[in-house]
Amino acid sequence: MIDVAIFGAGRIGKIHAGNLVRQSGVRLTHVVDPDAAAAAALAAQHGSRVSDTDAVFREAAVRAVVIASSTDTHADLIERAAASGKAIFCEKPVDLDLARARRCADAVKKAGVTCLIGFQRRYDPTFAAAKQRLDAGEVGAPEMLVVTSRDPGAPPVEYLKRSGGIFKDMLIHDFDIFRWILGDEARTVFATGSVLADPKVGEVGDVDCTAVTIRTKSGRLAQINTTRRAAYGYDQRFEVLGSKGMLQAGNHRPTEVVAWTEASVSQDKPEYFFLERYRVAYALEMAHFFDVLAKGATPRTSIGDGVAALELAEAATTSWREKRIVEF
Amino acid sequence: MIDVAIFGAGRIGKIHAGNLVRQSGVRLTHVVDPDAAAAAALAAQHGSRVSDTDAVFREAAVRAVVIASSTDTHADLIERAAASGKAIFCEKPVDLDLARARRCADAVKKAGVTCLIGFQRRYDPTFAAAKQRLDAGEVGAPEMLVVTSRDPGAPPVEYLKRSGGIFKDMLIHDFDIFRWILGDEARTVFATGSVLADPKVGEVGDVDCTAVTIRTKSGRLAQINTTRRAAYGYDQRFEVLGSKGMLQAGNHRPTEVVAWTEASVSQDKPEYFFLERYRVAYALEMAHFFDVLAKGATPRTSIGDGVAALELAEAATTSWREKRIVEF
Amino acid sequence: MIDVAIFGAGRIGKIHAGNLVRQSGVRLTHVVDPDAAAAAALAAQHGSRVSDTDAVFREAAVRAVVIASSTDTHADLIERAAASGKAIFCEKPVDLDLARARRCADAVKKAGVTCLIGFQRRYDPTFAAAKQRLDAGEVGAPEMLVVTSRDPGAPPVEYLKRSGGIFKDMLIHDFDIFRWILGDEARTVFATGSVLADPKVGEVGDVDCTAVTIRTKSGRLAQINTTRRAAYGYDQRFEVLGSKGMLQAGNHRPTEVVAWTEASVSQDKPEYFFLERYRVAYALEMAHFFDVLAKGATPRTSIGDGVAALELAEAATTSWREKRIVEF
Amino acid sequence: MIDVAIFGAGRIGKIHAGNLVRQSGVRLTHVVDPDAAAAAALAAQHGSRVSDTDAVFREAAVRAVVIASSTDTHADLIERAAASGKAIFCEKPVDLDLARARRCADAVKKAGVTCLIGFQRRYDPTFAAAKQRLDAGEVGAPEMLVVTSRDPGAPPVEYLKRSGGIFKDMLIHDFDIFRWILGDEARTVFATGSVLADPKVGEVGDVDCTAVTIRTKSGRLAQINTTRRAAYGYDQRFEVLGSKGMLQAGNHRPTEVVAWTEASVSQDKPEYFFLERYRVAYALEMAHFFDVLAKGATPRTSIGDGVAALELAEAATTSWREKRIVEF
Repeated sequence: MIDVAIFGAGRIGKIHAGNLVRQSGVRLTHVVDPDAAAAAALAAQHGSRVSDTDAVFREAAVRAVVIASSTDTHADLIERAAASGKAIFCEKPVDLDLARARRCADAVKKAGVTCLIGFQRRYDPTFAAAKQRLDAGEVGAPEMLVVTSRDPGAPPVEYLKRSGGIFKDMLIHDFDIFRWILGDEARTVFATGSVLADPKVGEVGDVDCTAVTIRTKSGRLAQINTTRRAAYGYDQRFEVLGSKGMLQAGNHRPTEVVAWTEASVSQDKPEYFFLERYRVAYALEMAHFFDVLAKGATPRTSIGDGVAALELAEAATTSWREKRIVEF
Repeated sequence: MIDVAIFGAGRIGKIHAGNLVRQSGVRLTHVVDPDAAAAAALAAQHGSRVSDTDAVFREAAVRAVVIASSTDTHADLIERAAASGKAIFCEKPVDLDLARARRCADAVKKAGVTCLIGFQRRYDPTFAAAKQRLDAGEVGAPEMLVVTSRDPGAPPVEYLKRSGGIFKDMLIHDFDIFRWILGDEARTVFATGSVLADPKVGEVGDVDCTAVTIRTKSGRLAQINTTRRAAYGYDQRFEVLGSKGMLQAGNHRPTEVVAWTEASVSQDKPEYFFLERYRVAYALEMAHFFDVLAKGATPRTSIGDGVAALELAEAATTSWREKRIVEF
Repeated sequence: MIDVAIFGAGRIGKIHAGNLVRQSGVRLTHVVDPDAAAAAALAAQHGSRVSDTDAVFREAAVRAVVIASSTDTHADLIERAAASGKAIFCEKPVDLDLARARRCADAVKKAGVTCLIGFQRRYDPTFAAAKQRLDAGEVGAPEMLVVTSRDPGAPPVEYLKRSGGIFKDMLIHDFDIFRWILGDEARTVFATGSVLADPKVGEVGDVDCTAVTIRTKSGRLAQINTTRRAAYGYDQRFEVLGSKGMLQAGNHRPTEVVAWTEASVSQDKPEYFFLERYRVAYALEMAHFFDVLAKGATPRTSIGDGVAALELAEAATTSWREKRIVEF
Repeated sequence: MIDVAIFGAGRIGKIHAGNLVRQSGVRLTHVVDPDAAAAAALAAQHGSRVSDTDAVFREAAVRAVVIASSTDTHADLIERAAASGKAIFCEKPVDLDLARARRCADAVKKAGVTCLIGFQRRYDPTFAAAKQRLDAGEVGAPEMLVVTSRDPGAPPVEYLKRSGGIFKDMLIHDFDIFRWILGDEARTVFATGSVLADPKVGEVGDVDCTAVTIRTKSGRLAQINTTRRAAYGYDQRFEVLGSKGMLQAGNHRPTEVVAWTEASVSQDKPEYFFLERYRVAYALEMAHFFDVLAKGATPRTSIGDGVAALELAEAATTSWREKRIVEF
């Protein structure tokens, strides 16, 4: 039986908790959250105890931690978990500060603990199938990637202020998709952006629409387009062009009803937001974490992936702010 | 806490058991199956005890039974459950013999117990959304229905011999779809069929392809086409034409990958078979059963639906065998 | 240079005239229509002369006639054309009376003239490609056919009175599709119908919705569903299931725009009606007629096809009226 | 009757000639091409005379010229046509040299003659419908544009050497789409590219894959991705995101056949190349030219559009070559 502690009893913490207790041989023993009520509720639901950070790290029986707390706590928790030899699952980002994230990665490496970063899109059935078929050579060698990544609505301005900016907060997932799908690293990054959806986003020094282009070391090209506000919902697609064809990974619809009326022939909009679209991905991700711990499966993400995505986010932020092409 | 006994620890029994234990306030206490090993395995998985029929009906604490055993046991179990005041969830069909099924329905009615029949397609997200939108008037009054219902492959001949024939075994679901979607009853049924996929099916006096037409009391028209063997998999669709448009309920695909190659632009085939396609439907169906028991939800199916679908299946069998139109 | 006379300067006559003058080596020399103004206009457009029936058949230089006049004139014109050795293109139906149609066919056979019947759907790029791929074995041997054939609106009651009824007027095309796609002949026909769209249709003794089932000599099954009034437009599809898969022939859309909005993801409705959907088919059909005349191409339809479709229409009418299965 | 001369009897010249002679009130009177046989063949087909440049411009009766000759002749022919007061339809580009193109535009402006540039994509039914619906406000104010523009195969290296490079030769159409759809002008252009499909392209100093990002004066964002070699054919799509939704303009397929097999569910690839995809667009473009001449329709393109697209192509070339962001 693997005893697990979770940091964070909020929206994503609840999802991870629900998924981890479904794994056989796994027990959620500790819940830590500064919001005592939230911690108590989650602990009650899963027969766990409410705890605190120090207690978790003192408890030798806790073999793994799930870090789903606020971003500013990630780096500390990772380092403490590494120091105490516990396996780590941590939501993105490792830290908003790249240097700090790198130090974390060093600590994890030195400790030799497992550390998965929550790039859940890699577990999405559609995205994972596209990757697998690409790797199997179905469309030849990959050449170009187009990523469309759009949210249905912007988070509150208060959130945005502490988010590290759109490139670190939102596109970090897309940068991971880029690295994962093309299997290549960036040589140059160009990013631009605008405030088109909501002027308040501009007031906190951020943008709500972006266009990013990455050229890789081997000359492959990737374009990413994002917005915080797509009226039709959450739009999560990519297309990878290879020498022998193209694979498109499309949106999921809630149902397969098609309505033929005097007006048009219409289908459902995509699933509403990340909790819906990536519901299955979150479950598979947590299952994978315990396959790594219990069955020796090879980790599909590492803290290195978290740092690399952050490096791209930082480069994109610089490119946008300084209006220049950033070279690696 | 609602204590539940399950009859049948086979393929579908396991699915129902897995779904019912996920309902809060529900416990699977008894597992009954002539196959002792199967019963033991399922009981062990859910912390239940292996039991037998008499013991279950003697046990006052068992409030509900799930009947997922072989068809020839359904009627007896329904009658005993009704007699002992237990709520019933029973897989289709009630019985292969229509008169017996009607007696069961009478027993259930007299006992006043809840009795849901396992027409799980009504819970499929796509089918249910189509029904809801139809009822909301999105395409006006329904006029015509076309049902396509195709299996990926025929069951073993041994199964077919005891199946009651394709109309009772396979089309019973489509007859239920007809009644549910059009909300109307049959005036005439015409059915024909052929052995096109596998000659062995003909040797046991059955057909493997059918074409059925139903004209309702109010003149609506329905056509059903089925085969036991669609090379591309499980094809579960219907289209309902209304005075203001049409709603199509389509297949589900495992992923939304589209491959563009020199040969074509291709998508995934439909989900493989009923366990895949109706996985969500089975879960929602069992959740509904306990919503009825615990929260007073109105049952979405009744033993009357089971009898009515069987009446259509019997009429279709007669129409096919005697090469005539059957009137109700 | 092939001189051609056309009978009928109405809607479909104009289309055929426009298509035939585009063939190289072909000239429209005579236009015949009881409506003098219509004849004059069409003749003026193509540099032809207005003529009359007798004059056309006296004129040895006229090698071919296109019969696009009212249905009650078809048989006479076919027989006169056959007698004078002219090649014939005739719109469906040959005649509403089956015996008369058969006599026409005999006359054509005896005369040895080419006689194509206007089953333009065989030339539709989508339908023709499906047929070609089926013949190439892409989905194995055909087993089942489902034809959906729906008009956007019913013609005037005055038209319906003289139309021969929905099976001869509208479904005759679908019966031809059945014969052409399955390459088989009917053993039994069952047809039913209702008045659901417009009560006036019932007042003239016709129906506006039909459901037809055909079982062929080799046991293949076909279902046809039709309505005179589909709110979303002209719906022309078929699906043929074979032992190795299925080919679907779908509707054509005016454009490939997809709109993603808060409401839905929507595409264009199908092309409005037969003049739009079969515009290309009409052009290819007329080109084929002159390929037969000038280049010795094998005729893709014959008067025999016209008679066979009419036989099916008559059988379906009988089945519907007499509420019985008709055997061939 | 409008007499027209055509320069260029090659592939695209033949298409324009075929389309213009179909306009009523229009006559193709002169054909000019250095390839005497090509000129003779085209003239013969349309009852025109073979002529030469001087003769055309001396002939007062020639009211309009269609310039479909090689790129290096465009500017001269435009200037001479302008000087002689003839209306002009000219294939893109005006000239490979921007200064020269601007002088042409000045000449046209001074002469006050109509001068349409062959941006045929604006007439494509799908693209035109998307533009019209965008202008009608269906998805609100446009914010982002993603253009996918891929050829099935690269032209011969000899052609590439004289092509002006991929940005002027191929993307000029996409730059026009950008201006037309967003209705805005570029503030900054960033372009990058690679040789991924064919090393020979690199040997002549060009690239075969590109990624371009344009930020407009009002902050809108556009991304263009192109390749010379898409294994699945000609891929011509764009998506415009607005404040209230998105319009996608997709590829056209030759037929609407869908094949369901053991392998997949597949549709046709897109129409093969520009002659197929833009067949209707070319016809509508030429019809528009004569609507402008004969009926006073407002020209949908101008030589100014030709110059503006060329400016973008030049900026993109500079951005790619000098690895910098180009500001306007």
